Amino acid sequence: MAGMVTQGATYELFYWPSIQGRGEFVRLALEAAAAPYVDVARLPAEQGGGAKVLTALLAATDGGGPFFAPPVLRHGAVTLSQTAAILQYLGPRLHLVPDDEASRLKANHLQLTIADFVLETHDTHHPIASSLYYQDQQAEALRRAVLFIRNRIPKYLGYFERVLETNVAGGGQRTVGAALSYVDLSLFQIMVGLGYAFPRALARMAAGLPRLVALCDRVAAEPAVAAYLASPRRIPFNEHGIFRYYPELDP
Amino acid sequence: MAGMVTQGATYELFYWPSIQGRGEFVRLALEAAAAPYVDVARLPAEQGGGAKVLTALLAATDGGGPFFAPPVLRHGAVTLSQTAAILQYLGPRLHLVPDDEASRLKANHLQLTIADFVLETHDTHHPIASSLYYQDQQAEALRRAVLFIRNRIPKYLGYFERVLETNVAGGGQRTVGAALSYVDLSLFQIMVGLGYAFPRALARMAAGLPRLVALCDRVAAEPAVAAYLASPRRIPFNEHGIFRYYPELDP
Repeated sequence: MAGMVTQGATYELFYWPSIQGRGEFVRLALEAAAAPYVDVARLPAEQGGGAKVLTALLAATDGGGPFFAPPVLRHGAVTLSQTAAILQYLGPRLHLVPDDEASRLKANHLQLTIADFVLETHDTHHPIASSLYYQDQQAEALRRAVLFIRNRIPKYLGYFERVLETNVAGGGQRTVGAALSYVDLSLFQIMVGLGYAFPRALARMAAGLPRLVALCDRVAAEPAVAAYLASPRRIPFNEHGIFRYYPELDP
Repeated sequence: MAGMVTQGATYELFYWPSIQGRGEFVRLALEAAAAPYVDVARLPAEQGGGAKVLTALLAATDGGGPFFAPPVLRHGAVTLSQTAAILQYLGPRLHLVPDDEASRLKANHLQLTIADFVLETHDTHHPIASSLYYQDQQAEALRRAVLFIRNRIPKYLGYFERVLETNVAGGGQRTVGAALSYVDLSLFQIMVGLGYAFPRALARMAAGLPRLVALCDRVAAEPAVAAYLASPRRIPFNEHGIFRYYPELDP
């Protein structure tokens, strides 16, 4: 797979070192393509790592910044932020999107819809403010989660199930085109993340989402993805990221 | 300005006909460039307009869809959704972004950050669920709005003020490059929208945001923008869109 990487410079990912978060969508693409990359903030401080490196890069103004938030990707002279923009940049370079313009536009709008879903998912445990602890907005979170499970998960996942179903080139198995794309990888992450945070809700819905469930299994079985998931590079889910398991939110 | 439009096909915008919403960021770009466009859902039903046309297009699978939500732009054989993706497509065609790749990447990440801010702003009056009335989540909205005003507006607007300040090519007057861009237009919309929804909060902050305030005045004075804002094509702010005025949320 390393031969698929057509450009020489090593990719440098800057993201919080202790969570999957939004950075995970980028990690999955880099890993699935066996691309040469460094997860910079996870390096020891004496090797140039640590969260301070990340916050300094956000504020820097010499390469497209300042940036509002991580993830940030640096590749040679290019520095860019926003998950969907990073994947749009990486897609052609990692052969994780078809060559034609229509497919690339489709991949981008799907990824942007995933970004919206991610933000909605995060706010399920933080409906009032990110600056407050979950415990200080638990009553509101309980109210939001019920409706998120009832209305929003089915709306988003039902949509992506339809995207799979109607992608003729992919035979119902791929979201865009006929081969593995960064959108497939991101939907895998959405499915396992929701399965972590809302296992009971997702189990009830699985029968109605056969293509998404199958996609998930297929992505997990990709050799490079399977190797990554089994490695210490895959940070376990925890209660600091987007997908958090609070049993009371998944009755 | 019409001479700036380099492609022949008329742009067709599909968006809810009675609100500014996310569609307004696209309308502003089309209007500022005096591009030939049709705001399809606002046409009378007998001319092919109405919200049903929009919902049918969202579900259609023959041109990049199905799409999750409007706005959707159709241009010749191209159909795409997601505000930031539409502006990324329109930018070069309407001469609303510089020619170089670095500037285009920067414009895109700024626009995606604006999209995040828009979603956060919307949820200020709908912190529990879009499916509930504001009145049914007013207590939570009051709690969220206080922190949104205290922390989030200053964080986002402070960031964009710094973007203006550090854009040397624009002399502190443009977000990207030296000329008017779609990001400038979107920040104008953010500022007037926040000024509508949170007039007291924004008045308190204005002195600390001199470049954003000046940008806003400059955009409003662009002849094509001024003509648009004075026309019936500009839908007035109302309590159905992203920016809503509920006095109790802006004490």
